[in-house]
Amino acid sequence: MEKSKFFSDGDLVLLIPLNTEKIKDRHVIQLHSGEKFHTKNGMILHDDIIGKTLGSIISTHIGFNYIALDPTLKDIIKHYPKFRYKTQIIYPRDWGLIMAFAGIKNGDLIVEIGTGSGAFTAFLSSIIGPEGKIFSYEVDPDRARIAEENLRNTCSTRNYIIKIKNAEDGIDERDVDIVFIDVPEPWRVLRNAWQALRFGGQVVVYIPTFNQLQKTLKVMLLYGFIDVSVKEGFIRDFQIKPYAVRPKIKGYYFSAFIVFGRKGTFIPIKQIKEALKKFE
Amino acid sequence: MEKSKFFSDGDLVLLIPLNTEKIKDRHVIQLHSGEKFHTKNGMILHDDIIGKTLGSIISTHIGFNYIALDPTLKDIIKHYPKFRYKTQIIYPRDWGLIMAFAGIKNGDLIVEIGTGSGAFTAFLSSIIGPEGKIFSYEVDPDRARIAEENLRNTCSTRNYIIKIKNAEDGIDERDVDIVFIDVPEPWRVLRNAWQALRFGGQVVVYIPTFNQLQKTLKVMLLYGFIDVSVKEGFIRDFQIKPYAVRPKIKGYYFSAFIVFGRKGTFIPIKQIKEALKKFE
Amino acid sequence: MEKSKFFSDGDLVLLIPLNTEKIKDRHVIQLHSGEKFHTKNGMILHDDIIGKTLGSIISTHIGFNYIALDPTLKDIIKHYPKFRYKTQIIYPRDWGLIMAFAGIKNGDLIVEIGTGSGAFTAFLSSIIGPEGKIFSYEVDPDRARIAEENLRNTCSTRNYIIKIKNAEDGIDERDVDIVFIDVPEPWRVLRNAWQALRFGGQVVVYIPTFNQLQKTLKVMLLYGFIDVSVKEGFIRDFQIKPYAVRPKIKGYYFSAFIVFGRKGTFIPIKQIKEALKKFE
Amino acid sequence: MEKSKFFSDGDLVLLIPLNTEKIKDRHVIQLHSGEKFHTKNGMILHDDIIGKTLGSIISTHIGFNYIALDPTLKDIIKHYPKFRYKTQIIYPRDWGLIMAFAGIKNGDLIVEIGTGSGAFTAFLSSIIGPEGKIFSYEVDPDRARIAEENLRNTCSTRNYIIKIKNAEDGIDERDVDIVFIDVPEPWRVLRNAWQALRFGGQVVVYIPTFNQLQKTLKVMLLYGFIDVSVKEGFIRDFQIKPYAVRPKIKGYYFSAFIVFGRKGTFIPIKQIKEALKKFE
Repeated sequence: MEKSKFFSDGDLVLLIPLNTEKIKDRHVIQLHSGEKFHTKNGMILHDDIIGKTLGSIISTHIGFNYIALDPTLKDIIKHYPKFRYKTQIIYPRDWGLIMAFAGIKNGDLIVEIGTGSGAFTAFLSSIIGPEGKIFSYEVDPDRARIAEENLRNTCSTRNYIIKIKNAEDGIDERDVDIVFIDVPEPWRVLRNAWQALRFGGQVVVYIPTFNQLQKTLKVMLLYGFIDVSVKEGFIRDFQIKPYAVRPKIKGYYFSAFIVFGRKGTFIPIKQIKEALKKFE
Repeated sequence: MEKSKFFSDGDLVLLIPLNTEKIKDRHVIQLHSGEKFHTKNGMILHDDIIGKTLGSIISTHIGFNYIALDPTLKDIIKHYPKFRYKTQIIYPRDWGLIMAFAGIKNGDLIVEIGTGSGAFTAFLSSIIGPEGKIFSYEVDPDRARIAEENLRNTCSTRNYIIKIKNAEDGIDERDVDIVFIDVPEPWRVLRNAWQALRFGGQVVVYIPTFNQLQKTLKVMLLYGFIDVSVKEGFIRDFQIKPYAVRPKIKGYYFSAFIVFGRKGTFIPIKQIKEALKKFE
Repeated sequence: MEKSKFFSDGDLVLLIPLNTEKIKDRHVIQLHSGEKFHTKNGMILHDDIIGKTLGSIISTHIGFNYIALDPTLKDIIKHYPKFRYKTQIIYPRDWGLIMAFAGIKNGDLIVEIGTGSGAFTAFLSSIIGPEGKIFSYEVDPDRARIAEENLRNTCSTRNYIIKIKNAEDGIDERDVDIVFIDVPEPWRVLRNAWQALRFGGQVVVYIPTFNQLQKTLKVMLLYGFIDVSVKEGFIRDFQIKPYAVRPKIKGYYFSAFIVFGRKGTFIPIKQIKEALKKFE
Repeated sequence: MEKSKFFSDGDLVLLIPLNTEKIKDRHVIQLHSGEKFHTKNGMILHDDIIGKTLGSIISTHIGFNYIALDPTLKDIIKHYPKFRYKTQIIYPRDWGLIMAFAGIKNGDLIVEIGTGSGAFTAFLSSIIGPEGKIFSYEVDPDRARIAEENLRNTCSTRNYIIKIKNAEDGIDERDVDIVFIDVPEPWRVLRNAWQALRFGGQVVVYIPTFNQLQKTLKVMLLYGFIDVSVKEGFIRDFQIKPYAVRPKIKGYYFSAFIVFGRKGTFIPIKQIKEALKKFE
């Protein structure tokens, strides 16, 4: 993957104000020669960015300075108005947790149930590389269309396919490494997830409430998923004034419960019953 | 990357007791035809695993059942005695945070300063794929040798090089996407990190104490790193009995402060001074 | 309440090693003239403490130095072997949360359901003063006896009464300010709690699992408790080496969900039904 | 302390909307016969509340229902416009932590340095009872006056005295149980705090940033404070819909570092030096 050191027509650019930490004053735009971008601190000509080195200082017509950077995925999700949300998305604060504990890696074959706006799909796409593949199921055609656009604007590798289909009606893939589930009633697709997974493959379920968590856990044990675990993460941001370093006062302190489980070979009914009994 | 559905001689296997959640009773072993593995619950013949489907149930000579799985990286780090620690390692609970917020992805060129035992190197290796490359600096030859062995036992792609060299004396690479720093005095290598990075590239510093954090932040601002932020994450594990679901009582509630920053083009001294002044 | 500046026969003493932070080397003992106390760092004569100023340095026969302090309640709970646990206790990390958010204060009339070992009873006793009163219900006579002893060793004011009685069979008190519930099936005593409370009085329920939490919430809404809220707290301890200040790595990161609610006057059935419907 | 079951002229009332959880729609008002209170949901006559039972339903002139309760201190701090803030206050989420770990209790003699708006003073007043006493130091006469008013509106016991004085110039009290410090440069008053404390007495310092924390810790060790510890707490609020129970997504996840220490008798300089050396 060759990387450019200069901004070209068509590139995404992250603009950060040079002299303020205000997150809201950041912008991600796509460069189109001849166009203008209006900030509340003045106007920028796209042609003033095109050809510049990544990391350059760009001035508005009234002399306000921005730094121009290549955006990371988290910047795009947050600051690019063309990345549209029709749903709650899975935020960067959960991406890493899911990925590190499921062991998602280069080359993986992944089924995602619940594409949503495609934010997590884009993240997965950035990891699994050209050798990997994501099949993402979405029942809502509208959401699928928006996710498709979001991904086209974001992903450098076309290693994903969005299917407008209810995974309750079946998952077409087999020998899948990871099935990731983010739907309101995950227990309805767990059986199909089991069938799609390779032996040893992992299911990961993203669950916002206690109620869904309990039901999901019961059904996972019933279907014989093994190595079942639940994790919840949270991340604190900091105020970084060198003479007053401290965590920020307010922020996100919950997002979801993440359930992990793996597919083993046939487990004798007797043992499943015992396992369930042990838990009651 | 073709994946086997069956265990072969030379493979790593994760053994999980079928009927207990005790983490300590898990083992990762490498399969060698003809060998035996002794657990506290009886003996297993390696040849009883070789040829079996991933996820199979394996019985010891006294009838205790284990499930045999392909280990993920987190399992190897934790349960494989041949993965040796000469240092504090960076644990899975921080891998994802670093990676999601730095935007580390397939194909990246990474410099790591402080190989340690190679746990995080192995994680990076699993993400960046054959197109990516890691150059990992380690001053201690002993640690470097152990890390080398750990990585040989763990990584499926040889996309890393360990250099026995003090990064204070210079970093050889240029146009690097990410410089990751995990040494006691990170400020000593920040200038070299800056030089190694491509414009727009990211530095990530892993910092255990408040004292190191403040010094690092000041030096980063002095060198003109932009988009500087600090994050701290923690992850709660759960007890998963379906009728008594709750977070575990005790666990890891701190690991380190993670500092992020990006390299921009030359920033006028006047502006750096103003930035520093603003912070005092 | 006059306070002594010197240790007297019969006082409790907290002994802290002068030169180590090891929590396990702390002791709380009761002073008895003529007796000896054996530490792993040598022997101390009780008479070497009696008459000394609070905060004095006391040496063992082999010259190891302890500081002698008057223990706070948290020290007694933790380091006094005569404070015996037959049950999980409510730890200091939850005392304050409960107390600050329920508004427990000097002079309050409190009913506690589930005395347990009496740790939280002792805490309540220390706040409500001689004007306040605690009636604590415990079904298990054994636990009640131990709690009684624990409290006698701990409380400076006799403002508590332990009743060996199942609160499901009725609560004798009326016009109570606070009913605190710590039993496995709190929903079974909520009706009696309602009757015991004064109008405007608070119920506080201590709940370890998600499953109990959901059931409790439903029953509280059914009985018409108002201003219902749930909180969960956790507290991080720090390593305090001045040149390596940071949170400790491992510690308690969960204890329980704390549910609060208040008693209003009669709420029309129609409105309760609507409230419950809104929640489904 | 006799408690009324009915609202009287002059009482504080907490009004909670019957059918919504919106915190912003809560009000604390003081009852004055003949007056009216205007909510966005209609008008309430004070005389419609006076004489009613605590917990009664009160209707506005357009039929919107509120529940009328006696406010706890946390309600007053939050919803009573006459409780005015000229400063950051210490919030209920820290009250309990400080109090439980310092062992603050009925009858204590407390010095507070930095009255601020008096929120924490009011909390202390509610615990220590008529036997206890708080001397609160505030350099700013304006703040002192506002705190005085706040406390008059809030405290049922007049067990506090606000002094307009800089504690750096001396603390008048001796044999104090607790010195609580909440000023920007706590190290400037630590020597006076030491002198004011009884042997065995506790100092508690409320510290927002890492920088202040390190300096405070060093000075505390220098003056020979013992049993020094640092804690940080946070509290999660929950969404309580019974069929979708979960922590709220966003909230306060940091407030301050709380430092605790106790006063011992004279510690030989040699030992302090050794202690400090150990820490470097």
